[in-house]
Amino acid sequence: MVKHASLPRNEPGIETALGVLKQQFGERFQTGRAIREQHGHTTTWIENQPPDAVVFAHSTQEVSDIVRICAQHGVPVIAYGTGTSLEGHVNAPAGGVCVDLSQMDQVVEVNPGDLDCRVQPGVTREALNTHLRDQGLFFPIDPGANASLGGMTATNASGTNAVRYGTMKDNVLAVEAVMADGRVIRTGTRARKSSAGYDLTRLLVGSEGTLCLITEITLQLQGIPEAINSAHCSFPSVDAACQTVISVIQYGLPVARIELLDDVMVKALNAHSKLDLPETPLLLLEFHGTEAGVVEQAEIFGALAEDQGGHGYCATTTVEERNRLWKARHDAYPAMLQYRPGAQGIATDACVPISKLAECVTAAQARVAELGLIAPIVGHAGDGNFHVSPLVDMSNAEEVTKAAEFVIWLNELAISMGGTCTGEHGIGQGKRPYLDKELGGATDVMRTIKAALDPQDILNPGKVL
Amino acid sequence: MVKHASLPRNEPGIETALGVLKQQFGERFQTGRAIREQHGHTTTWIENQPPDAVVFAHSTQEVSDIVRICAQHGVPVIAYGTGTSLEGHVNAPAGGVCVDLSQMDQVVEVNPGDLDCRVQPGVTREALNTHLRDQGLFFPIDPGANASLGGMTATNASGTNAVRYGTMKDNVLAVEAVMADGRVIRTGTRARKSSAGYDLTRLLVGSEGTLCLITEITLQLQGIPEAINSAHCSFPSVDAACQTVISVIQYGLPVARIELLDDVMVKALNAHSKLDLPETPLLLLEFHGTEAGVVEQAEIFGALAEDQGGHGYCATTTVEERNRLWKARHDAYPAMLQYRPGAQGIATDACVPISKLAECVTAAQARVAELGLIAPIVGHAGDGNFHVSPLVDMSNAEEVTKAAEFVIWLNELAISMGGTCTGEHGIGQGKRPYLDKELGGATDVMRTIKAALDPQDILNPGKVL
Repeated sequence: MVKHASLPRNEPGIETALGVLKQQFGERFQTGRAIREQHGHTTTWIENQPPDAVVFAHSTQEVSDIVRICAQHGVPVIAYGTGTSLEGHVNAPAGGVCVDLSQMDQVVEVNPGDLDCRVQPGVTREALNTHLRDQGLFFPIDPGANASLGGMTATNASGTNAVRYGTMKDNVLAVEAVMADGRVIRTGTRARKSSAGYDLTRLLVGSEGTLCLITEITLQLQGIPEAINSAHCSFPSVDAACQTVISVIQYGLPVARIELLDDVMVKALNAHSKLDLPETPLLLLEFHGTEAGVVEQAEIFGALAEDQGGHGYCATTTVEERNRLWKARHDAYPAMLQYRPGAQGIATDACVPISKLAECVTAAQARVAELGLIAPIVGHAGDGNFHVSPLVDMSNAEEVTKAAEFVIWLNELAISMGGTCTGEHGIGQGKRPYLDKELGGATDVMRTIKAALDPQDILNPGKVL
Repeated sequence: MVKHASLPRNEPGIETALGVLKQQFGERFQTGRAIREQHGHTTTWIENQPPDAVVFAHSTQEVSDIVRICAQHGVPVIAYGTGTSLEGHVNAPAGGVCVDLSQMDQVVEVNPGDLDCRVQPGVTREALNTHLRDQGLFFPIDPGANASLGGMTATNASGTNAVRYGTMKDNVLAVEAVMADGRVIRTGTRARKSSAGYDLTRLLVGSEGTLCLITEITLQLQGIPEAINSAHCSFPSVDAACQTVISVIQYGLPVARIELLDDVMVKALNAHSKLDLPETPLLLLEFHGTEAGVVEQAEIFGALAEDQGGHGYCATTTVEERNRLWKARHDAYPAMLQYRPGAQGIATDACVPISKLAECVTAAQARVAELGLIAPIVGHAGDGNFHVSPLVDMSNAEEVTKAAEFVIWLNELAISMGGTCTGEHGIGQGKRPYLDKELGGATDVMRTIKAALDPQDILNPGKVL
């Protein structure tokens, strides 16, 4: 495992705060080892650092109370949604209190006429979409995991639909947030655009629990399109698939999803989800629009793909078939782990300007081969964002070293190409070494903001900066 | 005129800084009265407050030098692009140095393959689009005035295309900025999305010169659509036109422009631009897409408009006709002033959730009538954003009072409907009274950020907060 350094613990403060919280929250205050470990990082090779206690909050007022108590005693506060983050965001390197927001799971209000809604942070994206379906609406951001909307907001999640619908930043109209002193603020209105003051909404979206705890989110929604077509298309190489994606984006085709899978990833999906996708580099596609519009989009895609040797274009014909395809795509991570039983998956998240996509992905494939690693590739190619995931036998020290070397190499490559080390996962603990490399002096400005808004450094310490 | 209070002047600091700047900048340092007044506010009824000197900067290094000198002596620094802002952004209530960025007007780099470019802040939107045209690209944000991209970034401008392409926030990938101590930072990369740290890009976009001076902007571009169709359509009432807009948005029609004009505004445009538009409430439309796509969009619009009594749908048939229509729309402000010669135009900028648009606009019309004002209405109706512009005889004290009353009433109405007092103009001096009403305690968080990043309050003092 990769171990991130523990930070100094404020033992007397923690002891006092835990006592006060136990009084107020009774059964909703938990200190059992299993529950604490489950609220630390559990998804990747980053070592688990459990909090000292977990409190299940039921209201904004309660979250504010918890933060005030922790602020008074100088105790870390870590927000927790579903724990699906990949970079150690929920670890507690200085101990402290985990605020589990999963029971704040109400859809507060849906305004179908305005295509917006307000949700509590514990609502998951699947729960929201189930809630919305009857009204002909959906929320497009889809990071794969059935994450909570609070967590998705905190990490600026995106996923398969971002190429068309943008990221959380583009779809959060406002948040209600508890600041480091327990104050509750609301950062915006339901207007679709505003130039009223500094954009606190977008400052807090993606702040990974280090500037505030998010207690309510106002989201922009989309109407379910009249027609949805899904398909897959094979390519002779990852390069040819990437070149097709580049053409699609440059053409301006409003594709709703365009996902790249290398042959290793396809094999893993076929095995895990009992599919019979052709085991070649593949693009998975989805087109949204009118009946005529999606047909036209698919035709234009077909012509662009053919130029790159694309073949075997195959559209799904039923909703079930379509759901099965995307369910399989969403199960990429468990499918990978099943592909190499006993191995640990390592998340990477490079995102480069689209013109560099083919070069970056093929370089990554070559480096994986050179290092003798097994590392399926899957990605949101339309955004230039892709995941190479080394599957590592953690008992093999040499392999672990090589995997670590690969991760560093890939992040630096993406940055050198004018891209970012993280298109959507966030910095957390795992990507902290790259932030300065990517943004230089801008990180000092981030530090100044952090120090001003959380002078005691109690909000998710040891993350981002 | 509406006079905003002068702020305390640091006379010795100003004198010293001016001496140092004069040495460094020679002819590019100006203190003549006319040039100083031209660099204060000149567009609306807000009184002109000129700076003590104007410096024409030629490079980021020079901007950094100016800010360092001013920081050393505690002197205000005000960025200036084209001076087209409407809320007093470029006024100098505490005196100080205006940094005119209009000569930093180079398009630094265009990456057609990535649909992005880097520009200096003095490049105007028209100059950029002229530069891009041969490459089949355009930059969609269109605030009407031929504003500079630096100013558009600083105020989070939007305009007619925002309903489809978003605002500056959605189209700025990164900025290079000079902070209050003269440091130069870059806030992002060319990746289309990123979760790397706090979103300084979107914090600085719309910060109105109070957190930094913007010295370079990385913009996302669009391919010029295969087909563009423009049209206008008449309605029996503003309410019917608004209801149609609401239907269009709720339907999810990807209209590129949908502008509302009331009959007064149409009369003013006809007179100013020698058009013969029907003098009824009108929607001006534009559809972008494939040849088949725009035809389909126009048909769907037609059906939705018919439901509301829309009639006289008339599409432009040539590029010249289309350009003439939109040129007239862009000349709305001079057209208004010509409509009531000698009057001063007053800008308002309410933006409400789309379901409230009809109610808000018709209430505004009724209030205008009740107060006996003349106030054409034009707006980016698809965003719920509209401008009611009282044309005021400033020598008539009663009329001035009524206009002021109307502005307060409208801003408060928009806020009470879950909207904002400013969809795109920004706060500047004029809208400061409304920020607290709109966002409550969030403005304290803005103040904390301002104090942390500009502890001497030298960057555009007296604005936003």
